[in-house]
Amino acid sequence: MMQTAVAPLDPVLYAPIIERALEEDLGLAGDVTTAAVVPAKLAVEARLTTRQAGRIAGLGVALAVFHRLDPAIAVEIAHDDGADVQAGAVLATLHGAARPILTAERSALNILTRLSGIATATRQAVEAVAAHPTRVACTRKTTPGLRALEKYAVRVGGGVNHRFGLFDGVLIKDNHIAAAGGLEPAIAAARAALGHMMKIEVEVDTLDQLRVAIEAGVDAVLLDNMTPDALRQAVELVAGRAVTEASGGLRPDNLREVAASGVDIVSLGWLTHSAAGLDIGLDVERRGQV
Amino acid sequence: MMQTAVAPLDPVLYAPIIERALEEDLGLAGDVTTAAVVPAKLAVEARLTTRQAGRIAGLGVALAVFHRLDPAIAVEIAHDDGADVQAGAVLATLHGAARPILTAERSALNILTRLSGIATATRQAVEAVAAHPTRVACTRKTTPGLRALEKYAVRVGGGVNHRFGLFDGVLIKDNHIAAAGGLEPAIAAARAALGHMMKIEVEVDTLDQLRVAIEAGVDAVLLDNMTPDALRQAVELVAGRAVTEASGGLRPDNLREVAASGVDIVSLGWLTHSAAGLDIGLDVERRGQV
Amino acid sequence: MMQTAVAPLDPVLYAPIIERALEEDLGLAGDVTTAAVVPAKLAVEARLTTRQAGRIAGLGVALAVFHRLDPAIAVEIAHDDGADVQAGAVLATLHGAARPILTAERSALNILTRLSGIATATRQAVEAVAAHPTRVACTRKTTPGLRALEKYAVRVGGGVNHRFGLFDGVLIKDNHIAAAGGLEPAIAAARAALGHMMKIEVEVDTLDQLRVAIEAGVDAVLLDNMTPDALRQAVELVAGRAVTEASGGLRPDNLREVAASGVDIVSLGWLTHSAAGLDIGLDVERRGQV
Amino acid sequence: MMQTAVAPLDPVLYAPIIERALEEDLGLAGDVTTAAVVPAKLAVEARLTTRQAGRIAGLGVALAVFHRLDPAIAVEIAHDDGADVQAGAVLATLHGAARPILTAERSALNILTRLSGIATATRQAVEAVAAHPTRVACTRKTTPGLRALEKYAVRVGGGVNHRFGLFDGVLIKDNHIAAAGGLEPAIAAARAALGHMMKIEVEVDTLDQLRVAIEAGVDAVLLDNMTPDALRQAVELVAGRAVTEASGGLRPDNLREVAASGVDIVSLGWLTHSAAGLDIGLDVERRGQV
Amino acid sequence: MMQTAVAPLDPVLYAPIIERALEEDLGLAGDVTTAAVVPAKLAVEARLTTRQAGRIAGLGVALAVFHRLDPAIAVEIAHDDGADVQAGAVLATLHGAARPILTAERSALNILTRLSGIATATRQAVEAVAAHPTRVACTRKTTPGLRALEKYAVRVGGGVNHRFGLFDGVLIKDNHIAAAGGLEPAIAAARAALGHMMKIEVEVDTLDQLRVAIEAGVDAVLLDNMTPDALRQAVELVAGRAVTEASGGLRPDNLREVAASGVDIVSLGWLTHSAAGLDIGLDVERRGQV
Amino acid sequence: MMQTAVAPLDPVLYAPIIERALEEDLGLAGDVTTAAVVPAKLAVEARLTTRQAGRIAGLGVALAVFHRLDPAIAVEIAHDDGADVQAGAVLATLHGAARPILTAERSALNILTRLSGIATATRQAVEAVAAHPTRVACTRKTTPGLRALEKYAVRVGGGVNHRFGLFDGVLIKDNHIAAAGGLEPAIAAARAALGHMMKIEVEVDTLDQLRVAIEAGVDAVLLDNMTPDALRQAVELVAGRAVTEASGGLRPDNLREVAASGVDIVSLGWLTHSAAGLDIGLDVERRGQV
Repeated sequence: MMQTAVAPLDPVLYAPIIERALEEDLGLAGDVTTAAVVPAKLAVEARLTTRQAGRIAGLGVALAVFHRLDPAIAVEIAHDDGADVQAGAVLATLHGAARPILTAERSALNILTRLSGIATATRQAVEAVAAHPTRVACTRKTTPGLRALEKYAVRVGGGVNHRFGLFDGVLIKDNHIAAAGGLEPAIAAARAALGHMMKIEVEVDTLDQLRVAIEAGVDAVLLDNMTPDALRQAVELVAGRAVTEASGGLRPDNLREVAASGVDIVSLGWLTHSAAGLDIGLDVERRGQV
Repeated sequence: MMQTAVAPLDPVLYAPIIERALEEDLGLAGDVTTAAVVPAKLAVEARLTTRQAGRIAGLGVALAVFHRLDPAIAVEIAHDDGADVQAGAVLATLHGAARPILTAERSALNILTRLSGIATATRQAVEAVAAHPTRVACTRKTTPGLRALEKYAVRVGGGVNHRFGLFDGVLIKDNHIAAAGGLEPAIAAARAALGHMMKIEVEVDTLDQLRVAIEAGVDAVLLDNMTPDALRQAVELVAGRAVTEASGGLRPDNLREVAASGVDIVSLGWLTHSAAGLDIGLDVERRGQV
Repeated sequence: MMQTAVAPLDPVLYAPIIERALEEDLGLAGDVTTAAVVPAKLAVEARLTTRQAGRIAGLGVALAVFHRLDPAIAVEIAHDDGADVQAGAVLATLHGAARPILTAERSALNILTRLSGIATATRQAVEAVAAHPTRVACTRKTTPGLRALEKYAVRVGGGVNHRFGLFDGVLIKDNHIAAAGGLEPAIAAARAALGHMMKIEVEVDTLDQLRVAIEAGVDAVLLDNMTPDALRQAVELVAGRAVTEASGGLRPDNLREVAASGVDIVSLGWLTHSAAGLDIGLDVERRGQV
Repeated sequence: MMQTAVAPLDPVLYAPIIERALEEDLGLAGDVTTAAVVPAKLAVEARLTTRQAGRIAGLGVALAVFHRLDPAIAVEIAHDDGADVQAGAVLATLHGAARPILTAERSALNILTRLSGIATATRQAVEAVAAHPTRVACTRKTTPGLRALEKYAVRVGGGVNHRFGLFDGVLIKDNHIAAAGGLEPAIAAARAALGHMMKIEVEVDTLDQLRVAIEAGVDAVLLDNMTPDALRQAVELVAGRAVTEASGGLRPDNLREVAASGVDIVSLGWLTHSAAGLDIGLDVERRGQV
Repeated sequence: MMQTAVAPLDPVLYAPIIERALEEDLGLAGDVTTAAVVPAKLAVEARLTTRQAGRIAGLGVALAVFHRLDPAIAVEIAHDDGADVQAGAVLATLHGAARPILTAERSALNILTRLSGIATATRQAVEAVAAHPTRVACTRKTTPGLRALEKYAVRVGGGVNHRFGLFDGVLIKDNHIAAAGGLEPAIAAARAALGHMMKIEVEVDTLDQLRVAIEAGVDAVLLDNMTPDALRQAVELVAGRAVTEASGGLRPDNLREVAASGVDIVSLGWLTHSAAGLDIGLDVERRGQV
Repeated sequence: MMQTAVAPLDPVLYAPIIERALEEDLGLAGDVTTAAVVPAKLAVEARLTTRQAGRIAGLGVALAVFHRLDPAIAVEIAHDDGADVQAGAVLATLHGAARPILTAERSALNILTRLSGIATATRQAVEAVAAHPTRVACTRKTTPGLRALEKYAVRVGGGVNHRFGLFDGVLIKDNHIAAAGGLEPAIAAARAALGHMMKIEVEVDTLDQLRVAIEAGVDAVLLDNMTPDALRQAVELVAGRAVTEASGGLRPDNLREVAASGVDIVSLGWLTHSAAGLDIGLDVERRGQV
């Protein structure tokens, strides 16, 4: 069982997400089926079990959903975030009252399924470029309200995070360049306004633009929608003076040639906007009384 | 341009989602690139344009993101929710100050992309069963925090909504049955507890279970992971006495045979947990001063 | 001591209500009297005691108010939700630090008083119709922000809940009928738009309208402001093809004749908008040091 | 039409209450009946009309509910807060799109009904003591989450507000006195801790206690559950040296004799925990297209 | 070690402030440095230590920041709120996992530093007037969002609180007087509108205004920007008939002469809008594994 | 009038701060003085006027406070954020109803006063180092809940922002170094974990540490509490290979010698934790009826 060294998220970052998920599912009436049908004192054993192979992410968050409803549920973790598992793997076993476990089930699985899907897709991308020093990054194309969790899932999958928002890095795109009246004035304006902890990246479509950006001393260049050939020339032109990042329509299955161009980073919006969920279920067995 | 008759969502339902999306993207510093590089008075024309064919959902929500930052942005809508469009279609044109338009872009697109992806997948599912009276439904396997929007996107795609949460319908599953000590006591308990506006559905795996459920007078039966053959027998057995719903591993591309079995409803978690986003972008042109 | 089998509310559903109640009462300065006058280490025994006979509802919520201020307060419950008690009954005994108990007192009592008042009124209504199979339901005429709790109190009182909001059931009223251009198009439009887990009820004022509704196959009919005689004819006309519900100006003291008409359900907005609170107090005795 | 001079509430104070009321009623699906049945472009005229005589309070809040859903709804106010009206009085007329008006109806009425019920009960109490200079006050026995609105309704009814919470006035009750080891140390402790803008009131059950309190120079005394005779002696004993307030089991119909005792204030928890709602409805007529 | 008798704040009053502080500092990515660099199992001992002499306020709040991230951190308090300490004093010692302690450090110190700064400045003001019975009060010139905490720090410093907001005391200023058409009508209007638990204070600039106010029977007078001489005449004129409060440009170093005038209260906005923070740091040592 | 080119904050960033400020000041009763004393229809002209010279920051936020209570208040701005003004300067003139203007006054001024105080102190620091290319930065020692605004005020004052939180930049301090077992492993761990848009800074106390950091290729070094002499040697040693930042006990009045050492940046927690507010008031005149 392989485990990445990714630090777990602080619960402060996801507690409101759990609250919203439960509020959505409970409404004003709560879990009417469970309330009507399941005896209050019934105890169960429940196992979070994969139905597909993949990399796990979000197990701690999913378990926190159960604990939000009942802190007394006992949990044993077998495969934590970062584990690569086969179909049928038991990730964690829960013991406790049946009602809160059944009520929390769907909210917990919705989170675990999505994050593990992203981690699995990221790992596939990382493997696709494994022959090269290229790193895999995600973008800001995340699900509204879940960015902290989805960026975390990318890290668990072996990827790195591009900036988290508009606030923590400058990325000068074509519209900014046009607005500023050219690449050079845009870079100059950014440099004058920013603190020393922020980096400047510029999106370029052509080698001419790239030349200007590099001469202006930017920290990174986003090579947008370039062919592998163009990327190779770009990497050569940059010659280590900035981080090179390829982007545009990339997916785990079309990365190899791009990575072969020598770019430092490939970034994929696909990881967070289009990766399928990883199928994970909850198997429940009766176990006497609480 | 085909338009469904789906009623638009009341903004009260999605205003907090927009707020969170913008808070995630703006952090404490706001859009540092735009603030540094784009002149305050620059005006632009911007067009929300599809890069792929599909059905549109969430345009009103996306436009509300722009208006949250600047109510003065003027908008013309060409293809509203429910429209089926080709790649390259301009959905809406915005005129206004460059800064808020560029700042809102990603948050708006993240919502529009996801909802249109779901609507497009739903429409594909609806088309797959078009030869039959079968309806397409979604499930509770939605993204935490976005259920109202995702259920809406399914409606826009031509599907119907199963219950919205644990609160608005009884669905007795295998775990509930086991907990209650059998199907009949489970149904009896549910009936005794509920008001007259709530329906009771039971998940069954076998025809024997199905027989018991139908005799107990449930409103609907969820036929879980049955083969087309088994589904056909189930539909025959039910004989119109309850709504029949097939579920389990369904996707737009494996629905046809299932629908041919005569079930009233096919339900797909896939629509909301694994449909890819629809690629939509924002094209911006400078247009003088505000 | 009789106990109903109503499932307790999940704390997720009422935690924000407790937070708001305490915020209202504590403001920015907190409980200035207690802070100034009561020693920090003083321990007390406090008993929640009825001053009137009635049915208890909301005890768990009330106790959660005390625990929100001090989780170390020990609690013994004598009569839980659903109990019918006389004046002078001790519902629960608390032991703990004097300050949090005195500070939480009013917020806890305000909730317990209101919910027990509703449960008591509901029980009276249920008793009034006890000679008939008629069930007692509440409406959406609830206190803003407290609907989940008030609907729960009705269940504790032996009643059932009509729909919880505009979202979980269709109720076509006169204004909808007029808007749709008639009863039949209204029902057809509703049926086309809804999922299979939602029921359709129609409000009717006359037997002619009732006939149309029943022929259109609605699930339930709301017989609005009809005389007992008219209700009797309506029940006969429906003949079991739909749930019949009588409504309009009903109170526990005028239900008997209505129930005698044979309607399945009587629904009373009065239970939640006009029932008086049940008088309950907190008796406190000093008990050494914490 | 009599109008009190009570200043309207700032919307900042009630906007969150409206938000919660609508969220409760709309859930995730919104108003499914209206969305399915009512054409988007239908316009209506709607009249808020009393079904009972009483004093109006909360009209501005109720109208803000409609405007929260659609700011374009036009409103004409005929009888504003403070008006005493007969059954059948049209309080305000709305013109606008049918959908938001029908969707907001219940949330708006739930607020207006409750506040007008409180104002009407307060006015009755004020009239009951009109032969004396006695003023009518409410208490902290309010509905959780609605204290600002309910205290306002009491003002509209002609009453005055006791303290708003534990934070804005000292009220030393029997438990505080016991905790402090007597009335004098309790008063001394309170005086030492408080700023100069806060008043001190003491609850007394006997004339002996009253004597101590008055000698200690408190600002007000709460005469708890005293007979009219005892109250008369208490007023005499106080002789204008403090505000006298009678409390305990008071209702509009048992105030007269209490007021005759000469107390400055009678305070009634009943106004906010047990007053019935005032019956108000919305009459709607179709009026073409928006 | 001197300890004031100020009652600690209920955590309900500051829990949201801690939540916001941590959200600000953690953003979506959390503490990236600690996550990358500090081993998960490393344990530390950490000491909150003063770098300056002063009076401590906010220690409980600061410790709650650490416990919000990790309830398992053990804490020993040496000098609690109200203690007067020298530079180098260890206020509290923490034992626990290194990561949450390092992550919470800045948020905890930002609160403790500010509140101790205010308490220290207040104590200086109290000492400056120690030769007189004059009390020191703060104003509403507090930091947005922190009023409850800052008012508490003033109490810890030995001061008293003026009103907490616009809601809990009447203070009639020059603009109100002008608006009402004179001092007398303003006082009369206030008296007619208010409950018996609220006091009335009037701001006066001249002895003539003062005379009017005192004759109108106000509870307190705010003597604004008067010279010590004028204050002395004012105190004489009031002759104990109202509380006298001096205000306007006061700081701990210019209070003495003002207090000598005999006013009951000096109030200083300076305490909360301009007092410097008290320098406090966190010293950390490695201590094996958690 | 000098104006900096700092982009204004998006209102999304400060709207919740305004809400909290008003909620604190209004409580449940609102502005009782104004409600009682000021006629509803009175109109006023009000001028935000400095009582001290300084640089203005937060005017837009302050005006938004007034507009939150009444969007109809008309505003003319004379000196916007970034202006350096004398005592007595009118920053903006407001025309509108007296009540909302008087009610919002204190909340608006509390924000404007604090932010202008920070901007003024920053400008003083910037002037103190004007003879050198050194830039002035703030830290994370900000007021809980106000970081976005205070960082903005620093920019308006001519300073730059260090990282905004723990999330947007790596700063390896002594505790991190100890925890990681040395400077080199700490830097290596950080580099491996981070995306390409994040910079790494290391805090060093000695020239030996500095040498290690520079050889490890960090982006910036924090030279903590060094003498001007040591700083000069450090700058020489770094020789442009990293950004040099001096910190520790700096204030506007002790910066000059530090800047003379040649460091790129001086950073001052003092700007946000100890700068005094800038005295600004609101002058009001009656102006007929609204």
